[in-house]
Amino acid sequence: MLVKGKHYRTIWLKENVLQIIDQRQLPHEFIIEDLKTTDDVARAIKEMHVRGAGLIGATAGYGMYLATLEAPSADFDKYLVDAGEKLKATRSTAVNLAWAVERQLKEILKGNSVEEKKDIALKIAEKIADEDAEFCRRIGEHGLKLIEEIYKQKNKPVNILTHCNAGWLAFVDYGSATSSIYAAFDKGIPVHVWVDETRPWNQGARLTAWELDQHGVPYTVIADNTGGHLMQKGLVDLAIVGADRVTYTGFVANKIGTYLKALAAKHNNIPFYVALPSSTFDWKTAEGKQIPIEERGSEEVKYAQGLLDGEIKKVLLTPKNSKAANYAFDVTPPELITGLITERGICKPSEEEIKKLFSKN
Amino acid sequence: MLVKGKHYRTIWLKENVLQIIDQRQLPHEFIIEDLKTTDDVARAIKEMHVRGAGLIGATAGYGMYLATLEAPSADFDKYLVDAGEKLKATRSTAVNLAWAVERQLKEILKGNSVEEKKDIALKIAEKIADEDAEFCRRIGEHGLKLIEEIYKQKNKPVNILTHCNAGWLAFVDYGSATSSIYAAFDKGIPVHVWVDETRPWNQGARLTAWELDQHGVPYTVIADNTGGHLMQKGLVDLAIVGADRVTYTGFVANKIGTYLKALAAKHNNIPFYVALPSSTFDWKTAEGKQIPIEERGSEEVKYAQGLLDGEIKKVLLTPKNSKAANYAFDVTPPELITGLITERGICKPSEEEIKKLFSKN
Repeated sequence: MLVKGKHYRTIWLKENVLQIIDQRQLPHEFIIEDLKTTDDVARAIKEMHVRGAGLIGATAGYGMYLATLEAPSADFDKYLVDAGEKLKATRSTAVNLAWAVERQLKEILKGNSVEEKKDIALKIAEKIADEDAEFCRRIGEHGLKLIEEIYKQKNKPVNILTHCNAGWLAFVDYGSATSSIYAAFDKGIPVHVWVDETRPWNQGARLTAWELDQHGVPYTVIADNTGGHLMQKGLVDLAIVGADRVTYTGFVANKIGTYLKALAAKHNNIPFYVALPSSTFDWKTAEGKQIPIEERGSEEVKYAQGLLDGEIKKVLLTPKNSKAANYAFDVTPPELITGLITERGICKPSEEEIKKLFSKN
Repeated sequence: MLVKGKHYRTIWLKENVLQIIDQRQLPHEFIIEDLKTTDDVARAIKEMHVRGAGLIGATAGYGMYLATLEAPSADFDKYLVDAGEKLKATRSTAVNLAWAVERQLKEILKGNSVEEKKDIALKIAEKIADEDAEFCRRIGEHGLKLIEEIYKQKNKPVNILTHCNAGWLAFVDYGSATSSIYAAFDKGIPVHVWVDETRPWNQGARLTAWELDQHGVPYTVIADNTGGHLMQKGLVDLAIVGADRVTYTGFVANKIGTYLKALAAKHNNIPFYVALPSSTFDWKTAEGKQIPIEERGSEEVKYAQGLLDGEIKKVLLTPKNSKAANYAFDVTPPELITGLITERGICKPSEEEIKKLFSKN
């Protein structure tokens, strides 16, 4: 995607150094950060220099490649398994993280020598990243049809609400929820995006707004409280969000607050779609309540971070000694979801439809 | 209510100067501000030095008294009518504002002399404030029974979710939503309050948290996105919110985001109550969609205000040129509301029940 008119991915290797965009600094500063070790990678995931289901997966994939570069030959395999555990422990809800680590380990350990294992790790890391970008591109093609259909009926700009950042910054490129929006915009369909600011970390206000701005897509930032009112007033034609984990039965774990917007969409008869690449499916978990929900530090709620006098600063919102709770995700049950937009097409959030779509191959 | 152990109201007269707590500075600084003219009063309401349905009404009541002190004898009545229009134009959704101005005008104009009119204005201003406090106290007595009932069944701390600040800072004393909580706490019933931070102006994180803290009530601040998840997890026993305007048919205009919490409460079978004094009823409006919804400046969404290095500062959250929309209220339909807690008791949000409760006298 475009940054100041230049094409970027969110992650790439440069001479065996992993380069990422430090997303904590956006939208105020565009800083490329070097990650040289698996410890760097683990910290970047945990402290959210990178975030978002797909990008966490891709970062972990590259992290495993860095692990092969630092592993001692004598204890190579054990070092990799431990590195994988370290990476998996950084975040608990997004399933892409464990998926990428396990995919790497399974392939790497097939190698017959340390050198061969390094080669495999590099190949798989690039493959995970390439697949992520390609799957997101295809998600955009499928979702585009939904937007086109609404535009045909309405013949006025299509208002799309999104929550958090399921944009290209959350993946390697294109994004999941935003991919269809970019595809529609690029095709000349007039769209306007309502961007939930997404407290406490403000991924919407900071990242989605910045992405859309860079691409030229019209958008308006709103407080997270606002979506229901907009839906009541007929100002939302369609909601598209991303996902951090989707059970094979259709329960969607996504950024905290998604569930509230899904309830409002249902109450106002507005289509509510979840966009995800297949790497976000959890094929082992049936019940939404089985999904672990990450709790993060209370400071993220007690403070807000933003730009002041050219520097990024944090201001205290609450009384100093206030307690605050910070659940990072919630689970939306399938009955509130119109459909899942995947790289293979759109399906209902039911075990039957999901398995039908993904049984081919 | 208590501030550092001392009893305060939110508004009082001192030698014909109106004194208020400048709520923009809370929770970081406790500043008492002098309002000397109706222009001061209008600005204090518009710029939210004072806010909340009951307190806006009381402030407008006192504002009309200040108007009698500054009105020229020759054009006394016209000056008052104009002052009333000026005050009513400051905020559009809370019905208490127009109610207080009209109540004052009706009574003042009965006076036979300028002096008599001043006396009436003072008496009515004090009466509006006293009634507000007394009605809130009674709301607390009625709501207390709901909390007591849950405690009897549960025998563990009662978890109550509230949105925005419908506390004593929003009224003259006690608060509407908080009054029952204070009554329960004072009676020794263990309670814990989930405080929605309530973006964009953070009335929850700043004001409700501060109030509860001053009173010693256990509370936890949460992002506005969180309430639905807490309800799904069984961590909310009861939701109580305030209101800025309630139609006689039971539609509730309250701080933006209330509707989303009401949807989640309904979906999880959790009682959802709205607490209000009768001054908040709109006896003329039948349909929720007829209620005007105030739109405020986009800077409130684009920036967050808080404490940094001992000073109150604003940080920019979004890209600099980002658009933002700031709808201040939403409307919750009666089917999502378990009951209305008023000074006369609790009733269903239906025309029949509301009129039955308020037809006595």
